[in-house]
Amino acid sequence: MSLIVAKFGGSSVASIEKIKNIAQRIKDMRDQGNNVAVVVSAMGDTTDDLIALAKATGGDLSGREMDMLLATGEQQSAALLALTLKNMGCDAVSLTGWQAGIMSDSTYNKAKISDIDTNRIMAELNNGKTVIIAGFQGISPGGDITTLGRGGSDTSAVAIAAGLKADRCLIFTDVEGVFTADPRIVPDARKLSSIAYEEMLEMAILGAAVMQPRAVECAMQNNIDVEVLCSFKNNPGTIITEVSNMEKQKVVSGVAHDYNCAKVAIFDVPDQPGIAKTLFKALAEGGINVDMVIQSAMRNNHNDIAFTIERDDLSKALPVVNELVKKIGASGCSFGDKVAKVSIVGAGMQTNPGVAADMFEALADEDINIHMISTSEIRVSCIIDEELTQKAVLALHKKFALSELE
Amino acid sequence: MSLIVAKFGGSSVASIEKIKNIAQRIKDMRDQGNNVAVVVSAMGDTTDDLIALAKATGGDLSGREMDMLLATGEQQSAALLALTLKNMGCDAVSLTGWQAGIMSDSTYNKAKISDIDTNRIMAELNNGKTVIIAGFQGISPGGDITTLGRGGSDTSAVAIAAGLKADRCLIFTDVEGVFTADPRIVPDARKLSSIAYEEMLEMAILGAAVMQPRAVECAMQNNIDVEVLCSFKNNPGTIITEVSNMEKQKVVSGVAHDYNCAKVAIFDVPDQPGIAKTLFKALAEGGINVDMVIQSAMRNNHNDIAFTIERDDLSKALPVVNELVKKIGASGCSFGDKVAKVSIVGAGMQTNPGVAADMFEALADEDINIHMISTSEIRVSCIIDEELTQKAVLALHKKFALSELE
Repeated sequence: MSLIVAKFGGSSVASIEKIKNIAQRIKDMRDQGNNVAVVVSAMGDTTDDLIALAKATGGDLSGREMDMLLATGEQQSAALLALTLKNMGCDAVSLTGWQAGIMSDSTYNKAKISDIDTNRIMAELNNGKTVIIAGFQGISPGGDITTLGRGGSDTSAVAIAAGLKADRCLIFTDVEGVFTADPRIVPDARKLSSIAYEEMLEMAILGAAVMQPRAVECAMQNNIDVEVLCSFKNNPGTIITEVSNMEKQKVVSGVAHDYNCAKVAIFDVPDQPGIAKTLFKALAEGGINVDMVIQSAMRNNHNDIAFTIERDDLSKALPVVNELVKKIGASGCSFGDKVAKVSIVGAGMQTNPGVAADMFEALADEDINIHMISTSEIRVSCIIDEELTQKAVLALHKKFALSELE
Repeated sequence: MSLIVAKFGGSSVASIEKIKNIAQRIKDMRDQGNNVAVVVSAMGDTTDDLIALAKATGGDLSGREMDMLLATGEQQSAALLALTLKNMGCDAVSLTGWQAGIMSDSTYNKAKISDIDTNRIMAELNNGKTVIIAGFQGISPGGDITTLGRGGSDTSAVAIAAGLKADRCLIFTDVEGVFTADPRIVPDARKLSSIAYEEMLEMAILGAAVMQPRAVECAMQNNIDVEVLCSFKNNPGTIITEVSNMEKQKVVSGVAHDYNCAKVAIFDVPDQPGIAKTLFKALAEGGINVDMVIQSAMRNNHNDIAFTIERDDLSKALPVVNELVKKIGASGCSFGDKVAKVSIVGAGMQTNPGVAADMFEALADEDINIHMISTSEIRVSCIIDEELTQKAVLALHKKFALSELE
């Protein structure tokens, strides 16, 4: 008898009809002789609705009370799924985070799981029950309800799988797995049967919104194989796993793109020590995440500095940058939100030089101008004009022969 | 420094606007130097919405999972009220039933509070916080969430007041207190400054929907004075208290009426032992509460039996009674939902004979025919035609001079 931990996201439990669908899927796993622990997110828009109510109070959305409020969403979907399963003859019990022994620190809104006390879950499983656990939440040492922040339910599932030493950890989403590129852009994009943790992390961070980076990190730290698959179909998904077979893998595993990009340039920045610190500290204090940074070659003791930020942060960045231009004595600045980031990701890159050059060549062959470049050990990213994104992704997918079978 | 326990019902927290209103009220109590523990119900229709979702699953609404689901409503309103108070500069913390130490038995959907562990509440109060407690819920010995059934939040408040040895227990509702009769019927109905537990129990059960009978019982058992007052006005309400000054009270304290009444008559029931048992056992098994029963004088070894039930139960009762008529060999039956119950209530009745006769006289003077009569030590109730209810209530209110000051 295998033990499966399965996580279903908000879109999979958005209505009672959808809850019935996934209940059938869970029952099938049970009927095949598995023990099943399920982690659920809140129904569809529940969390957004609760946030709107909280905003209307005028109160502080960052503290303990917010977690108290938001944690109810997952408790509701867990109870509704348990009701549905029991009605199908599949005995089930729902547990809140604290009942399931999900212990966390006290950092409200983005708590980290510190440990899982699996006693209650194991007792219920041994009692023949399917256990439905409210994701996204835990309990602090002081007995207060915490939430785990963005991607919290994915993280709950991976941590519970680790705590239970589960045989399988399944993350059900509305996509069929991790693809070599976005299938909406590249018709012959191929679903990867497996992907290394590090690759998945880069893909996840770069905008392939399949699984939250935090949960991937948690899986990597605990060495848990995680399968991402579609809750509406019965096809196998993509297994996120350790890098043991990295050398057998292709140099490039996938192409990612991200439209949530904007570019800021500051002209004629005096070349003085501490200027960069002043600039990026001010942005950080404004809650603005800077991604890539380029400083041009010096000219008359002045530099041009360009950087990218999330496009959603542009309105926050504008006043900060305008203020800075005056403060540091730069000649001016420009903002551009018509850019995008395309990236190639592959664990094999580390031992295969020349991959970046191949990427630049593929883009040049399509007359695509590169604004900025950044690299990591297993990734190369380029900022390009937004309107050329599709062309670039197609060209890169072809260049690295990603539609061919592994 | 006094300790106040204040309960606000669903209509008082139905919107953020209303929550802001009661938050101001709570802040005023704090500013006057009191410690305050607040018990809240779920916002407006939340509970109904959750029940509708649960029904859609097709699952069993009577078990553990239902309590898991419903308890979220009070957790939400408690968190929203705490957010609002903190935003007004009144430090507050919300607690679920289990966090507040509300221990109950394991009877899901209608659990009874077994004990209150006041440690957490007291610690928060001593820490200068206003404590907002989710009403209607507790935790079972096994660590499962329970709900307390109808009137649960009132009972939570009274039990917490008892546990904390609070100086005052305030139940805020949408009425101004307990009146000598329904002010919508009797323009000169008077708000009672106090009422005995037993009287309130009879009034509550008889349809003066001010406070749940269960909560009144809990107050009586724990000898807690409870004040019922309006959440929208600043007037004093009615104090429900022990009967020490009963003898000083009027013989009749109030007139209650209840439209949720229907009458069933079964004709020519053979006068055999066990017939009544057969009849009323079948009704009980059908989940139908029988209120008054009359058996007419025997005629040819046959009786007519009439009884009243809640009007909402009439559709359930119909098939049961029709079946019974055949089974016991009665000649037929009749159903009437155009009846109502009017009652006079007063603790002084016990030592003042002739009160019932005064009631019958008042009704007779108005040509109101009495279908059925039932009495308790401190109450006389009559079933009359529904259309005569207003006339009857007015006549009784006048007969016992209830508009005159105590």
